[in-house]
Amino acid sequence: MNSSTIHNIQHWGETLHLVVELAGTVAFALSGIMEGAQKRLDAVGVCVVGFLAAFGGGTLRDLLIDERPFFWVRHVEMLWGVLALCLLAMLFMRSHHFDLTRKAIEWPDALGLGLFTASGVHQALIGQMPALVAVLMGLITGVFGGVLRDIVCNEIPTAFSDHRPYAVCAFAGGWAYVGLWQLGAPGWMSLLVCVLVTAGLRGLAMWRNWQLPAWQID
Amino acid sequence: MNSSTIHNIQHWGETLHLVVELAGTVAFALSGIMEGAQKRLDAVGVCVVGFLAAFGGGTLRDLLIDERPFFWVRHVEMLWGVLALCLLAMLFMRSHHFDLTRKAIEWPDALGLGLFTASGVHQALIGQMPALVAVLMGLITGVFGGVLRDIVCNEIPTAFSDHRPYAVCAFAGGWAYVGLWQLGAPGWMSLLVCVLVTAGLRGLAMWRNWQLPAWQID
Amino acid sequence: MNSSTIHNIQHWGETLHLVVELAGTVAFALSGIMEGAQKRLDAVGVCVVGFLAAFGGGTLRDLLIDERPFFWVRHVEMLWGVLALCLLAMLFMRSHHFDLTRKAIEWPDALGLGLFTASGVHQALIGQMPALVAVLMGLITGVFGGVLRDIVCNEIPTAFSDHRPYAVCAFAGGWAYVGLWQLGAPGWMSLLVCVLVTAGLRGLAMWRNWQLPAWQID
Repeated sequence: MNSSTIHNIQHWGETLHLVVELAGTVAFALSGIMEGAQKRLDAVGVCVVGFLAAFGGGTLRDLLIDERPFFWVRHVEMLWGVLALCLLAMLFMRSHHFDLTRKAIEWPDALGLGLFTASGVHQALIGQMPALVAVLMGLITGVFGGVLRDIVCNEIPTAFSDHRPYAVCAFAGGWAYVGLWQLGAPGWMSLLVCVLVTAGLRGLAMWRNWQLPAWQID
Repeated sequence: MNSSTIHNIQHWGETLHLVVELAGTVAFALSGIMEGAQKRLDAVGVCVVGFLAAFGGGTLRDLLIDERPFFWVRHVEMLWGVLALCLLAMLFMRSHHFDLTRKAIEWPDALGLGLFTASGVHQALIGQMPALVAVLMGLITGVFGGVLRDIVCNEIPTAFSDHRPYAVCAFAGGWAYVGLWQLGAPGWMSLLVCVLVTAGLRGLAMWRNWQLPAWQID
Repeated sequence: MNSSTIHNIQHWGETLHLVVELAGTVAFALSGIMEGAQKRLDAVGVCVVGFLAAFGGGTLRDLLIDERPFFWVRHVEMLWGVLALCLLAMLFMRSHHFDLTRKAIEWPDALGLGLFTASGVHQALIGQMPALVAVLMGLITGVFGGVLRDIVCNEIPTAFSDHRPYAVCAFAGGWAYVGLWQLGAPGWMSLLVCVLVTAGLRGLAMWRNWQLPAWQID
């Protein structure tokens, strides 16, 4: 390949990364907005829950690995975007749109889960953390936005109680990232495989209606 | 003005600042103590909820902008004060005092909201953060003490669900601070205007019984 | 004493420290696992709540005093251990084991409370924090794992609402540590007394069925 082709591929890779990141953030924010609406929160509450769902996981990761400034301080346009999204949703969304929206964000949500997981694993590995810690950081990045959203809405987090694989997909994807990293694979490949494993497992789980094994305590 | 007059004004300003800060902290702590009491918490729980309401917002701000030591480590007398307040409340407060107390802390609470918001915005601006981030830090400082209080008491945060303007007042006051700062106004003036805008809007909202526009989702 | 005796005592002290720390961590994790099970969480939820109960308090302390890396990053084998414990519990524990388990972990839990409190006080004192702050850090280390566990399970934290002395024992033990430290006692003695005071008071409270004074609000 000549250098222009390589440049093109890199360019495409970056664009794809950005598109998935935006789609994931929008999907996470919408999940918060709809939960806030169903809990009859006021306009402020809906915005806060949307922000928590979109940015909570990454912020918690940055807090835990002591990374400053936060990603949303470096990219303040993401804050403006989610704020605009919240206001637009409140102006134009009605409850009969909710089921459709929920359907429409399933795939962006799965892709976002994969990408956010990969970013958490990546940051932890750069910080020299052990493999299991890196995977947990990925899981926290991908899943804890939704957990904070549910805690503020006074619900047991869906990710822990709906018996459908979600965090488990991020766990598997995180290990894929760590494995490739330790084999010396290039960064973009680890990222891609992590996203594909996470989103693929999540998609399979939704399609085949997989259930997490229930704990028969009695 | 001669230097003695200026000194006098500075002195008065500092005293006023301290009085508002104390009044706000007492108002926030009392809101926590009363909520803990109504949830039938034990003595430990009432103290913890009082502490969370009084110090939670500022602590979260310091965590997010990585400011150490926390303000309550530098001013440990505030911890002792709130501890004493919790014990005195448990000794002498009865449920028929609650409505009166709630009435009495409305204004100190509004002033405290304004001052805490201003302090959050100020610290974020000093740390070179973008305008929107600074305003959000102000909002978090002013509002998230109450949010943590409600989460521990297993309630949806009042600030997000009672449809009365509260965080929105802090949001407006925060923008006033940022605007004056960017115009190069002296620090005391930005602070004063932020407190007046926040507490004024909050007062108006309580007086005129304003409601946040409800989101008609169906 | 000759040096070999001293060496032996040190060795025994360290082993004892490790045994208590392991027992306490297991007890805390089991409390989370059982609460997750009773809330009908899925396998992921049970693990997360177990982790939160075991590591939440120490992590919050490290966040607040800005200590990095976290203790579970330095001792990643503790994470593997608790993960294994969660899986074993889900495989082999049944609901008729719960009462027995709850009985069996009472003492390890009390000892763990004492040790975790001591570790929190110790770290804060090393960081030059005032006495009251150090005691609060101890209390947070010992108690807030359980608080986070209960918040995620959508319950008012037991430590604040069951009217039985728990955090208060940690508070007393923390002051014992601070007092001995300020008198210049050796570290192992402060640690030992803190654990004995905390676990002793907790044991007495359980044995004599002590109640925290209820606040008669009406």
